[in-house]
Amino acid sequence: MPLGEFDLIAKYFTRPVRRSALGIGDDCALLAPAPGMQLAVSSDMLVEGRHFLSTVAPERLGHKALAVNLSDLAACGARPLAFTLALALPRADEAFLDGFARGLFALADEHGIELVGGDTTQGPLNLCLTVFGEVPAGQALLRSGARPGDELYVSGTVGDARLALEAFRGTLALPGEQFERVRAAMERPQPRVALGLALRSLATSAIDVSDGLLGDLGHILARSGVGASVEVDAVPRSAVLAAQTLAWQRECTLAGGDDYELVFSAASHDADRVQVAARAAGVAVTRIGRIEAAPGLRLVDRGGATVAHTFGSFDHFRT
Amino acid sequence: MPLGEFDLIAKYFTRPVRRSALGIGDDCALLAPAPGMQLAVSSDMLVEGRHFLSTVAPERLGHKALAVNLSDLAACGARPLAFTLALALPRADEAFLDGFARGLFALADEHGIELVGGDTTQGPLNLCLTVFGEVPAGQALLRSGARPGDELYVSGTVGDARLALEAFRGTLALPGEQFERVRAAMERPQPRVALGLALRSLATSAIDVSDGLLGDLGHILARSGVGASVEVDAVPRSAVLAAQTLAWQRECTLAGGDDYELVFSAASHDADRVQVAARAAGVAVTRIGRIEAAPGLRLVDRGGATVAHTFGSFDHFRT
Repeated sequence: MPLGEFDLIAKYFTRPVRRSALGIGDDCALLAPAPGMQLAVSSDMLVEGRHFLSTVAPERLGHKALAVNLSDLAACGARPLAFTLALALPRADEAFLDGFARGLFALADEHGIELVGGDTTQGPLNLCLTVFGEVPAGQALLRSGARPGDELYVSGTVGDARLALEAFRGTLALPGEQFERVRAAMERPQPRVALGLALRSLATSAIDVSDGLLGDLGHILARSGVGASVEVDAVPRSAVLAAQTLAWQRECTLAGGDDYELVFSAASHDADRVQVAARAAGVAVTRIGRIEAAPGLRLVDRGGATVAHTFGSFDHFRT
Repeated sequence: MPLGEFDLIAKYFTRPVRRSALGIGDDCALLAPAPGMQLAVSSDMLVEGRHFLSTVAPERLGHKALAVNLSDLAACGARPLAFTLALALPRADEAFLDGFARGLFALADEHGIELVGGDTTQGPLNLCLTVFGEVPAGQALLRSGARPGDELYVSGTVGDARLALEAFRGTLALPGEQFERVRAAMERPQPRVALGLALRSLATSAIDVSDGLLGDLGHILARSGVGASVEVDAVPRSAVLAAQTLAWQRECTLAGGDDYELVFSAASHDADRVQVAARAAGVAVTRIGRIEAAPGLRLVDRGGATVAHTFGSFDHFRT
């Protein structure tokens, strides 16, 4: 007989609370940001078939569910503090919960954060996490601060998660070892928390790439009331992706989604400081274009010629 | 053609942010509790067939999704501040969203709180809300403070939501007008926020009744390391429920669930203050028993005779 709901919570999700005033097991968790700090809050919901495939290992799913939420804190330059987890499961599946909890808490421990509350219920598999971070009042990285003349950057490489998805779909074939590498990019994204912290009072705007580079950059442009030009061939990609056709490279890097890298702008005179911050955070950062006063997004190739773009942003209701 | 995800968010869920530092539309929302205040946080997930029926009007569902979360803040004595909403929908259904948003915001406005962030995605209908409230440090109502000799109370009446569920299931029949009254109890619960605030530094423990009176009281007893006796016929019930058989009355009041009333304990010398607080909050509060040192839960009838109880707590994985 499966364990009941309360037993499951206790078995897999109850851990000692260290920093929060009150953790899991009461009606509410209690949090107190330090004086002068604002609390940054973000919620993400993950649905099977949309945000992860049924083939994902529970441990990787636990990692990813927290990673995509931490990525939102990173994009705000917030230091992670705690999170809540609401979980709908078709049945009380101990093997799933065991793996899921291991992946979840491994990443939580890496960032020194704790689970402070949540909910479990029976239903189609659905994960909803809310993460909490703190950031000094007025220092959060917003989408709205990009100014004409700023340089545009992206962290790490983008496009591998989309490449893995296409391999899963059978649209293209990848040798086993290459497939495992891009699959790990899709299933175990690394939230750029350290980079977000290093970019406080340096980046003029930032967003994490969840729906595709161009789509997410579009949110910065709209919020900041500016345009941009992007050098499409300068967008960093893995060796695996670089071995694909140019059309696939562009599709995956520009409209891939699920990358969880940071796209951000910074004043051109801060170019050196950006690289220092990137090294301190242990992640490569690549200049991919420039913010411009003229509205709209212009794509150019290495020679400066315009690239027609039909790349869309991933939209959960349109696709 | 249906509206896309971002358009839907903008159309139904974007409203001016008044009190929060930063609301919907960036990677994170920013909240800053007042100095000396702790932030109370609670997440609840609602799944069709478990927490609401497919027959519920979208407006009532919007109300209920927020109400059950506010009920957790009430049980902590926290003043509501803001909330996030993550929503999985099978399709972009404007009629649903319009009604849902109306019900949601009507209750939000009643409590002066705002939507500060969230997520929408395509998937089986699932609602996950996280609410934020504030409470002076050290004054939150917990489950752990009940002491032998304290009186036990419950607010309002309990059992109508379960009675409505049984009528929906066809287990029993109710005349139309009676059915509408208990249906409203199930679909439009009133979170006891004002009562929670009035009980600060008065109640020694509190919990809201979501899984059934006895089951939720059990959490107080376990956390507080005490037992209790409950006078089963003293548990307040509506006139509609009081017209049912005694067996149904006991089942619905003691193990009904979905009530969102507060069960709480207070020192016996504070009995008058409890009634003053209840009047100030505009809700009736009824004494239903007493906290005792001996572990376990004893049920007695009006004459003091023991009532055998086989009432369980509602468990989403067991039923």
